[in-house]
Amino acid sequence: MSVKRKDLFVSIVGEENVKDSQAQLLAYSYDATANFQSKPDLVISPRDTEEIAGIVKICASEQIPIISRGSGTNLAAGTVPNQGGLIVLFNNMDEILELDMENLTITVQPGVITQNICDFVEDNGLFYPPDPSSMKISTIGGNVSENSGGLRGLKYGVTKDYVKAMTVVLPDGEILKLGGKLAKDVAGYDLMSLFVGSEGTLGIITEITLKLIPLPISKKTGIAYFNSLEDAAETVSAIIADKIIPVTLEFMDKGTIGAVEDFMKIGLPLDAEAMLLMEQDGNEEQVASDIQQMIRIAEQNGATSTAIASSNEEAEILKTGRRAALSALARKRPTTILEDATVPRSEIAKMVKAIQQIAVKYDVQISTFGHAGDGNLHPTCLTDVRDEEEMLRVEQALAEIFHIAIELGGTITGEHGVGEMKAPYLEWKLGTSGINVMKGIKQSIDPQNIMNPGKMFAKETKMRLVINNG
Amino acid sequence: MSVKRKDLFVSIVGEENVKDSQAQLLAYSYDATANFQSKPDLVISPRDTEEIAGIVKICASEQIPIISRGSGTNLAAGTVPNQGGLIVLFNNMDEILELDMENLTITVQPGVITQNICDFVEDNGLFYPPDPSSMKISTIGGNVSENSGGLRGLKYGVTKDYVKAMTVVLPDGEILKLGGKLAKDVAGYDLMSLFVGSEGTLGIITEITLKLIPLPISKKTGIAYFNSLEDAAETVSAIIADKIIPVTLEFMDKGTIGAVEDFMKIGLPLDAEAMLLMEQDGNEEQVASDIQQMIRIAEQNGATSTAIASSNEEAEILKTGRRAALSALARKRPTTILEDATVPRSEIAKMVKAIQQIAVKYDVQISTFGHAGDGNLHPTCLTDVRDEEEMLRVEQALAEIFHIAIELGGTITGEHGVGEMKAPYLEWKLGTSGINVMKGIKQSIDPQNIMNPGKMFAKETKMRLVINNG
Repeated sequence: MSVKRKDLFVSIVGEENVKDSQAQLLAYSYDATANFQSKPDLVISPRDTEEIAGIVKICASEQIPIISRGSGTNLAAGTVPNQGGLIVLFNNMDEILELDMENLTITVQPGVITQNICDFVEDNGLFYPPDPSSMKISTIGGNVSENSGGLRGLKYGVTKDYVKAMTVVLPDGEILKLGGKLAKDVAGYDLMSLFVGSEGTLGIITEITLKLIPLPISKKTGIAYFNSLEDAAETVSAIIADKIIPVTLEFMDKGTIGAVEDFMKIGLPLDAEAMLLMEQDGNEEQVASDIQQMIRIAEQNGATSTAIASSNEEAEILKTGRRAALSALARKRPTTILEDATVPRSEIAKMVKAIQQIAVKYDVQISTFGHAGDGNLHPTCLTDVRDEEEMLRVEQALAEIFHIAIELGGTITGEHGVGEMKAPYLEWKLGTSGINVMKGIKQSIDPQNIMNPGKMFAKETKMRLVINNG
Repeated sequence: MSVKRKDLFVSIVGEENVKDSQAQLLAYSYDATANFQSKPDLVISPRDTEEIAGIVKICASEQIPIISRGSGTNLAAGTVPNQGGLIVLFNNMDEILELDMENLTITVQPGVITQNICDFVEDNGLFYPPDPSSMKISTIGGNVSENSGGLRGLKYGVTKDYVKAMTVVLPDGEILKLGGKLAKDVAGYDLMSLFVGSEGTLGIITEITLKLIPLPISKKTGIAYFNSLEDAAETVSAIIADKIIPVTLEFMDKGTIGAVEDFMKIGLPLDAEAMLLMEQDGNEEQVASDIQQMIRIAEQNGATSTAIASSNEEAEILKTGRRAALSALARKRPTTILEDATVPRSEIAKMVKAIQQIAVKYDVQISTFGHAGDGNLHPTCLTDVRDEEEMLRVEQALAEIFHIAIELGGTITGEHGVGEMKAPYLEWKLGTSGINVMKGIKQSIDPQNIMNPGKMFAKETKMRLVINNG
């Protein structure tokens, strides 16, 4: 970036909050997504909303791309500055501003680590349910921009269900305040939901008020192994049909179980085709009754072994396997691609089988774990980005996974976002009309396309696959 | 409407589904909002999505306004055809299409009466929680277009929290399918939330998939009367602070209590300043414990009399008063204006006091009841539209109520919508930037402004009040 331009930014945030050494630019050239990289021109750490408004005004007049970035845990290349420009960090905006015990809300700056919010409110007997796996590292600003999910989505919903108010700096530098500490508000279009999950393409979120709920008193954990995917899927359906909505209902397939056992040596049954980890929270009697009933349902549906944790320590042991899933898989090959094709709950068995067949068809390694209760699966592909020929097969396999997910009434991404990586597939889900509506909105709010350009909207849509299953 | 134009519509839906006699046009010239009236040119009842697409294409090419209308229970003049045009009814599209017990969803056409959905799913052990007071008459399409609330909003949220998928006919006649039977979906902007509550200004919703939850097993009702508004408001705060989220927490002020007693003669305490009606649902022990604890909290906060219903019959008796509130008030004067200024829960006492002072200041009759748990109040103004001088004072009083609501961190409408009536006040809540973002979106999706024109966007914003409280 030219000295003159840099000086404009320095005049707003101070020398100490601007970085542009080659090492620093390199550090912000990628996120957690394999195989995407591009250097920004400058990295800036504003201290408040007004500074951000000033920065955006410069970018608007100079047409400089702006990429908001939390902790860079994004899995869809959503924070890679693929057209250069300015990375905006929130390390100077990481304060919890207010806990309102009367209205059950917390107001925070975007740079607060999500886990810190959870810990803080739990110390006050309250609960912020969204729990993306990255929550120990990721920021709430990132979570809101991505509408992050997590393990508790089935019972408690996702990030968007908890955003009550926000301050946004629009692409022209205007400051917009949306929402309030309100349970109901129908004054105008639901702009807040539009900004949640917009991946930094419509503006910069600079303050967030979140809804909290009372902390459940009790929690219990159970586990079940199955010799067939269908039995596990039947168990999921039967639990819901029995009117139980568990807080988590996690799934691992055979490949994942094997990888975990290989890594941890904790005695997992290597012949099992599927594992379900179940948790319920609420008041004590209800939790005890629900977890027993879920295990009973698993047994009725062919579970080969089951267990209920009788203490927190035992619960931690049961959870070890699922927690280690990604690390256990990731150590096997140089590159891990964590996908999140999502289907209706009723289609889980079909989806997992299809993934296994696709892996064989393209001769790639894919194991699947994920959130069975809400159909949010994580097919995890183990590969090596340096092997171009294999990467081509990986791409074909993933495209076919997206295709099947949509065929089954699902979506190309349940909780990771579109970013640059999935943009070419978005039209498969939304159709031309849907993409056009989105483009119109983007154009109306960000006519110069300075907000995270090259994300969400692809230059070219991938050809829709024609798969002959016959 | 010219014969030629009419014939175009007849050719799509058949003669029997088009109305244009003067009596018929008059019948669709108003909704439940006092003092707004304007005749449409034609009333049409399409039979499916494709017919609606055909109708919209004609309207687009001929620039004919289209007003979607459910049962016309709108309270913000949202369905009054103030620029003439075509009223689209859904009386031929009132089928429940599918109940999916595995994914816990129901798919319906927009013309289904909301109460019928509730009854149907309850017969299957499931629960659709949003319960606008109009639900016995209003259609689900209307509820979705208005993002209707209801009594259970505090615990269960509002309509938008239950919409999982929809089919929309866009203003160019294209058919757009959004969402799915999915707990998580972050593929692109949240267009579904944009259409929910957009009051027919962005397209016509022609099919809706709703999320269901298991039906709570048990329910209990309690009631408490207070000699001061503050005691009632303290009780609300203390209940929440005690980590109880009741299913309903309804409020009536002295004026409403008096009107109900006058109407029903059921022995309500006429000296009480406030009533709180409390309900909890869930499993039996929890419900019993919560309702006892809520009544205990009311007593600790100065309740002068309390009661817990020991049977369903007793519960119905306790609920009679609140249920009769609107009818009891409405019979007093020729015109009833039901408002829905909404504030954070912590500001209820201040808001109700302010409403009482405003009524005195402008010498108008306003009583307040509403949903205390979520701060959604219904100041109800009793007046006579034929008295122009009084109507001027009513308008001033309501404007001041909106002003105070916003000052207290609230909104001009919690659940009724903006329509034509509140459009001039919307900028008070959203600011110029917010209105501009909305206008940009409207312009990008409906560039000809044929979808419910004259709603949501005002020709002129009312001047912001300057109130000297000193």
